[in-house]
Amino acid sequence: MPGGVEWALHCCVVLTTSSEPVPAARLAELHDVSASYLAKQLQALARAGLVHSTQGKSGGYALTRGPESITLLDVVEALAGPGPAFVCTEIRQRGPLATPAAACATPCGIARAMATAETAWRRALAATTIADLVRDVDANHGPDIMTAYGTWLGAPSG
Amino acid sequence: MPGGVEWALHCCVVLTTSSEPVPAARLAELHDVSASYLAKQLQALARAGLVHSTQGKSGGYALTRGPESITLLDVVEALAGPGPAFVCTEIRQRGPLATPAAACATPCGIARAMATAETAWRRALAATTIADLVRDVDANHGPDIMTAYGTWLGAPSG
Repeated sequence: MPGGVEWALHCCVVLTTSSEPVPAARLAELHDVSASYLAKQLQALARAGLVHSTQGKSGGYALTRGPESITLLDVVEALAGPGPAFVCTEIRQRGPLATPAAACATPCGIARAMATAETAWRRALAATTIADLVRDVDANHGPDIMTAYGTWLGAPSG
Repeated sequence: MPGGVEWALHCCVVLTTSSEPVPAARLAELHDVSASYLAKQLQALARAGLVHSTQGKSGGYALTRGPESITLLDVVEALAGPGPAFVCTEIRQRGPLATPAAACATPCGIARAMATAETAWRRALAATTIADLVRDVDANHGPDIMTAYGTWLGAPSG
């Protein structure tokens, strides 16, 4: 699990409050995290098409689509890559008792069981959206906090 | 996902065929993998109580219990630790708009959603045992291969 997942998810949540691009440094300040490391997470989100960045004096990051269209899986895969966490190296085809390649057309039981578990994990992550997380903040801390995020992000820094 | 999970699971599968302890070097040779790195995985399995090691000339590793009592989750946790892959650092309590600690008695929506996904993953891993994997080898490659593993592991090396 990439360490930046938590930061990236929090950024997506607060970016829903801003109609203007938000500089990476401002997001780092709001969350009190390393600006340089957060910049890497935001660049990964941009490469995955979840945020776009604009250059210049009023530049920064903005979500590319509505928060109901961005799932936790989108964000996790943006940072970790879409590939499986468990990578099968076909150990059964190695060593003195190697199973012939022709008999290994389908994944072995280990690879299938690990893939099944990952599918369950991905399915759960895909079932929650950034909009769900925003609703959760509203429900647990009141809507004022989301409004405050928006006001703070839109205010000049310094 | 620790890289040794695949190796450790294969070791558990073939250890079901041996009534005698199997030296780590023999397991490494069977799977054509690094003996030193595999030794680390076996030591982790031993620390978790899944295998026990005996010293001496006929020493080696043996499963501590029946393969129907060892799940994939047992093996994954032996290598990765039982802790969550996603660690919440309570970002909501940081920065200029920090939520007061008193209002953070329950995990935030992000932490809960990530935990839900991990629970789904762990549940799936817990649903498959080493015995299931052995049956899968039998079903896909015939019972002769498991017998051959046992014969090879029991034969003197060299």
